[in-house]
Amino acid sequence: MARTKVVIIGGGFGGMTAARFLRDAEVVLIDRTNHHVFQPLLYQVATAALSPTDIAWPLRTLFRSQPNVRVVMDDVVSIDRSARVVRLRDSAPIAFDTLIVAPGSRHAYFGHDEWEALAPGLKTMADAVYLRERMLLAFEEAERQRAETGMQDRLTFVIVGGGPTGVELAGSLIEIGRKAMGPDYPHLRLEDLSIILVEAGPRVLPGFDPALSAKALTALERMGVTVKLNNPVSAVRADGVMVGNEWIPSTNVVWAAGNKASPLLNTLAVPRDANGRIKVRPDLTIPDEPWIFVIGDSAHCLDRDGSPLPGIAPVAMREGQYVASVINQNLPPDQRSPFTYTDRGMLATIGRAQAVAQIGPIHASGFLAWALWCIVHVFFLIGLRNRIRVMSEWTWYYLTFKPGARLLFEQPAGRPHSSSTQQTEATAVEDRAPTRRAA
Amino acid sequence: MARTKVVIIGGGFGGMTAARFLRDAEVVLIDRTNHHVFQPLLYQVATAALSPTDIAWPLRTLFRSQPNVRVVMDDVVSIDRSARVVRLRDSAPIAFDTLIVAPGSRHAYFGHDEWEALAPGLKTMADAVYLRERMLLAFEEAERQRAETGMQDRLTFVIVGGGPTGVELAGSLIEIGRKAMGPDYPHLRLEDLSIILVEAGPRVLPGFDPALSAKALTALERMGVTVKLNNPVSAVRADGVMVGNEWIPSTNVVWAAGNKASPLLNTLAVPRDANGRIKVRPDLTIPDEPWIFVIGDSAHCLDRDGSPLPGIAPVAMREGQYVASVINQNLPPDQRSPFTYTDRGMLATIGRAQAVAQIGPIHASGFLAWALWCIVHVFFLIGLRNRIRVMSEWTWYYLTFKPGARLLFEQPAGRPHSSSTQQTEATAVEDRAPTRRAA
Repeated sequence: MARTKVVIIGGGFGGMTAARFLRDAEVVLIDRTNHHVFQPLLYQVATAALSPTDIAWPLRTLFRSQPNVRVVMDDVVSIDRSARVVRLRDSAPIAFDTLIVAPGSRHAYFGHDEWEALAPGLKTMADAVYLRERMLLAFEEAERQRAETGMQDRLTFVIVGGGPTGVELAGSLIEIGRKAMGPDYPHLRLEDLSIILVEAGPRVLPGFDPALSAKALTALERMGVTVKLNNPVSAVRADGVMVGNEWIPSTNVVWAAGNKASPLLNTLAVPRDANGRIKVRPDLTIPDEPWIFVIGDSAHCLDRDGSPLPGIAPVAMREGQYVASVINQNLPPDQRSPFTYTDRGMLATIGRAQAVAQIGPIHASGFLAWALWCIVHVFFLIGLRNRIRVMSEWTWYYLTFKPGARLLFEQPAGRPHSSSTQQTEATAVEDRAPTRRAA
Repeated sequence: MARTKVVIIGGGFGGMTAARFLRDAEVVLIDRTNHHVFQPLLYQVATAALSPTDIAWPLRTLFRSQPNVRVVMDDVVSIDRSARVVRLRDSAPIAFDTLIVAPGSRHAYFGHDEWEALAPGLKTMADAVYLRERMLLAFEEAERQRAETGMQDRLTFVIVGGGPTGVELAGSLIEIGRKAMGPDYPHLRLEDLSIILVEAGPRVLPGFDPALSAKALTALERMGVTVKLNNPVSAVRADGVMVGNEWIPSTNVVWAAGNKASPLLNTLAVPRDANGRIKVRPDLTIPDEPWIFVIGDSAHCLDRDGSPLPGIAPVAMREGQYVASVINQNLPPDQRSPFTYTDRGMLATIGRAQAVAQIGPIHASGFLAWALWCIVHVFFLIGLRNRIRVMSEWTWYYLTFKPGARLLFEQPAGRPHSSSTQQTEATAVEDRAPTRRAA
């Protein structure tokens, strides 16, 4: 039998796991960056606690020992089902026998895509580095204004979305802001820093047990985070957000609410859910295409109880493993057992020695849950080197409160503008390079 | 006595050292970035061997324990000697009693400033990150073209300037390219990679003893670097460089030749040398201004034998220390002993286990010089944390040849363009964000 040619779109948790388990097929793994990111720790890059290289790995290096995997760095523009090729922005089209679609998602702005520029999200390393720059610049700017004018405006960060990303970001920001950065900005008083977490629903961490949500809320408020529940954001402007009937002035709004699947999925022309995810069949394929699989944040896949599986790393990884196994065995559709997912629990960290854990019947919070969170996250980081780095960074930070990644680069001139269009976004070119002033 | 107000322009080796030794005065340290960079290791960031955070420190953190030092992140636009203020781009003017001018230098393009966009230099962290992106993109692009078309053009990097930076960059690039990156790009043959080091003069490392220059040349050529001596670059275009009478096609040209002092020095209106450096008096002050000091790459300061001191970190640090001592003692001009510098030797690394060292009468090369280089550079890195990180990175890389910092970020859209004008450069806004394609 000739080796089947498998194309994987996306090097996130789903696509990377599928590639790792595909030991026989000829695999082409396409990603628009050159690296895999450990997304659950992105918020720590955004708050300068970790460095980008601590939680990302070049895909080529990851697949060095797998000669059957070819890595292509490019944007997928469309999927041509009849011609059996994916079309790329820069490279020649790539043919496939089997396709695994795992392009991930962006945040959902609920019909207000224009808010993204004002309230950036946190899905990629580029997002994290951009948020880090905004945060550091905000502190520099506040310090400068206080030193010169004694201005008394508060330094306000608004985080939209009370899920794990929003909670982790809020907790991390107030810790960094109050304890670590305070001593560095002599004109800022610690109480001037205001971190506001906005959640449209009635509680933070809605995926968790209500008792743990309550514990997380208490922990956040004790740390100094202002939590506003039961009110959606109705407007975002450059100078603030409208939350319910309240106008909150802030030039630092971060979006951590909702998921919107990649527009690339449009080109498959199959039914999708309200978030744009494809309603996959029990074997994760699309209708009438037994060899086109959709996994990760792109798949609307039903749990045993009929609710869709959440867009989290463990689900994507299990899906990647399942699809690889189907392909490795060359199983015809009628011989495939449906994909199943066993929930191994959920963890969310709030701050130093503060977390919540929900593992089957076991619900925990506080230091124990936090220790568990640390162990689990370090365990899942790929490769010894990064484990040691992250462990040492955390130990260092825990002991000293000096985050190690607080760099802002200057803006040199005279270099050519490079541009790139994004299939999933508008075609605006932007300057993500760290600059003195965020527009 | 009221505390004197000292303003320091620049947080490089000179300015940072001066600030550290100024224990009594009220100090304002101005830098256009928020960090101090250990410049001698910038080439390792450019070749992805180290991460930016490994060799840079936020200035605010460095001066946390010195409450007399205030850090301001801004661009100095001009120095007003009569009003005794420095004018800044964003902030209000800052008054001084005593001024220390240490803005550093850029590379000299010998009257061809338009070459900078085509052949970027390596002076700042932003430069290093930009070069890293160009290098990684060049490999990605070559791999892509080979995979699609079998194109046989060589992947050529030209490095202009045979001083320590050029030699270190050339050695590091060929190592990374041949040994570490080779296995990751299956369509590239190792012999396709061509690293060409161009030096206008008759030997590499012209500051060293001729015998050591010869050893460095032999080591570079044995590693596979092509060295072209005795020919200046006469033209730079987007598709190559003209070296003497030879046209070298290359889309990856790096500039590591010469120094040009900051244009900010113009605003002092005092005599300067051919490189734009100010001819300082024996106490490092400018004519008729006993309390305006110029140090580091900005100062043309004569050695005991009448030759100007080189623009290297040890000189800048000694100058910073000397100026701080004069200010701390409030010495009138006639009581100041002239600045003197005792050469403590020079080191340059070429590659793994390859370096040259010249310390007084001791001249060494090979592994011993390299071990010395490692010890000296780690010793001078500030702070335990970064020492451990750099040591572990080097050990890791030495053992595995897997450089750890090879990340390219995608280009998100929808974010505001930020712009910044540079006092030392044209006002072009550029996008240094990693992109798929370097224009």
